[in-house]
Amino acid sequence: MQVVVSAPAEVSERWRDGLAQAAPELDFVLWPEVADGDAEAIEAAVVWNAPPELYARCRHLKCICVLGAGTDQLFAPGIELPEVPIVRIVDPVMALRMASYVLAAILHFQRDFHDYVRQQRERVWRKHRSRDSHRVRVGVMGLGAMGRASAKLLVTNGYDVAGWSRSPRRLPGVEGFAGEDGWPPFLARCDYLACLLPLTAETRGLLGVETFARLPEGAVVINAGRGAHLVEADLLAALDAGRLRGAVLDVFETEPLPPEHPFWDHPRILLTPHVASITNLETGVVQIAAALRTVRDGGVPVNLVDRARGY
Amino acid sequence: MQVVVSAPAEVSERWRDGLAQAAPELDFVLWPEVADGDAEAIEAAVVWNAPPELYARCRHLKCICVLGAGTDQLFAPGIELPEVPIVRIVDPVMALRMASYVLAAILHFQRDFHDYVRQQRERVWRKHRSRDSHRVRVGVMGLGAMGRASAKLLVTNGYDVAGWSRSPRRLPGVEGFAGEDGWPPFLARCDYLACLLPLTAETRGLLGVETFARLPEGAVVINAGRGAHLVEADLLAALDAGRLRGAVLDVFETEPLPPEHPFWDHPRILLTPHVASITNLETGVVQIAAALRTVRDGGVPVNLVDRARGY
Repeated sequence: MQVVVSAPAEVSERWRDGLAQAAPELDFVLWPEVADGDAEAIEAAVVWNAPPELYARCRHLKCICVLGAGTDQLFAPGIELPEVPIVRIVDPVMALRMASYVLAAILHFQRDFHDYVRQQRERVWRKHRSRDSHRVRVGVMGLGAMGRASAKLLVTNGYDVAGWSRSPRRLPGVEGFAGEDGWPPFLARCDYLACLLPLTAETRGLLGVETFARLPEGAVVINAGRGAHLVEADLLAALDAGRLRGAVLDVFETEPLPPEHPFWDHPRILLTPHVASITNLETGVVQIAAALRTVRDGGVPVNLVDRARGY
Repeated sequence: MQVVVSAPAEVSERWRDGLAQAAPELDFVLWPEVADGDAEAIEAAVVWNAPPELYARCRHLKCICVLGAGTDQLFAPGIELPEVPIVRIVDPVMALRMASYVLAAILHFQRDFHDYVRQQRERVWRKHRSRDSHRVRVGVMGLGAMGRASAKLLVTNGYDVAGWSRSPRRLPGVEGFAGEDGWPPFLARCDYLACLLPLTAETRGLLGVETFARLPEGAVVINAGRGAHLVEADLLAALDAGRLRGAVLDVFETEPLPPEHPFWDHPRILLTPHVASITNLETGVVQIAAALRTVRDGGVPVNLVDRARGY
């Protein structure tokens, strides 16, 4: 079976080589090194932000494997996706990475490191009294693999944790909220709000002025979902008005963040360059190789994306 | 029983009022508002960095209570301490505060926030690949209440944890090292080294060139013990030579840190103003009130300092 691999230039060869080692019986070619005549013979695609031309030219795909947990890139305008199974990576190592990022983001503000970094630059010795973890109310938006791992780690660290999801979910030690009815009471108890939702039509722009207005005064917003969850102008307004104390942002509408963007030098924002949960090549390769073999053998792979939900 | 309270100006009244509420049958007076004739009648002292004159003038003390966990201040030159029981605060809330500080300090470097803060200032979008927690080897120096709570929290968070103490201690999930023999193998496996030791003649200057030379290349040093544990010039040399990747420092030889000190603008140091584990007034008041009543009734209070060990 021929498989095309399309990924950002700096990692595409590593993925191709890793997959070739994990599944030497399959034939991997790098996009765009695919001659016109050969595209017809390709039966599977392994992609991260692949161009629309790939789907237009590889017309006999039986399966698409996404090199990560988020699959919103496939449902972007301009992409005509064939009606074939879509597989994503569901990796406990990546979920733990996300959980440790959320914890690091909370501690950065909880232990006042954001202020101490600035004070250090100004040679100011001034103590702040930080709140003990059991008095810090954290809310996790989205209880997929990433959200569940994060909520669990936060419970372990003694925080007062709530979770919000589209449909109800029970997690030990986590106060559960679901759907539209659960949204206002959930937000009202979030000193820290961490967005780990998939990006869909329903969740786009959810981190906006109405959400910020329902949070307790001085809350901190963490976005490690997708840039389009956040209404950037609303965040700036809420920070500048003092409604929000700070924000930790890992994802953006445009990545890399353009040099002229106002987030860069905002005193209440910590920026990270989409690193909260970098895809783990080792386990990713194993999962994708298994999915490709299943497809080759006529089976149905695991970790399928639900097209109706969009994730 | 008359009790003198001597603490930094900004907190002394809060302690006096808290103690008066917890033990209304005792008579609390603030130092230095003590007339010469009255000093003789004082039977107990509640102190944080009290001046030597207090001990010289209050000659009939039966007990000294220290407003914190560290008691090295009592054994400083110029202080002639009476031979009476010394009580310190041993508070699980303070131990958890310390543990959360150590975790925050590790995550600050592990998740590359130290670099991302600088990159943000320079508008640079560059990803770093952070090490997963289970591959991060952390060493805790000192396994008293603070060190044990920190080691336990780090184990819970999935780190590869070791502990070093003067005499052997067993903690679940923690590789134990003790004494002089245990020192070199302990240091050899510390990607992060957190000092939570008491300050004694033996531990003074322990964070120096010989210690740094035994750490793995690129280790991070966290000092939340006492400033005098660290040889400041040795740290600067090790950072500038690239032997150490960074340092998170909460305590200093001179506090507040003088404005001209080279730590302020060092690019590999995060400074915090002695806030890792701020004494908890609520539980401190309860413990001190109990100790004072025990002394008044002729008993021996708990949480006594061992003068021979110096802590």
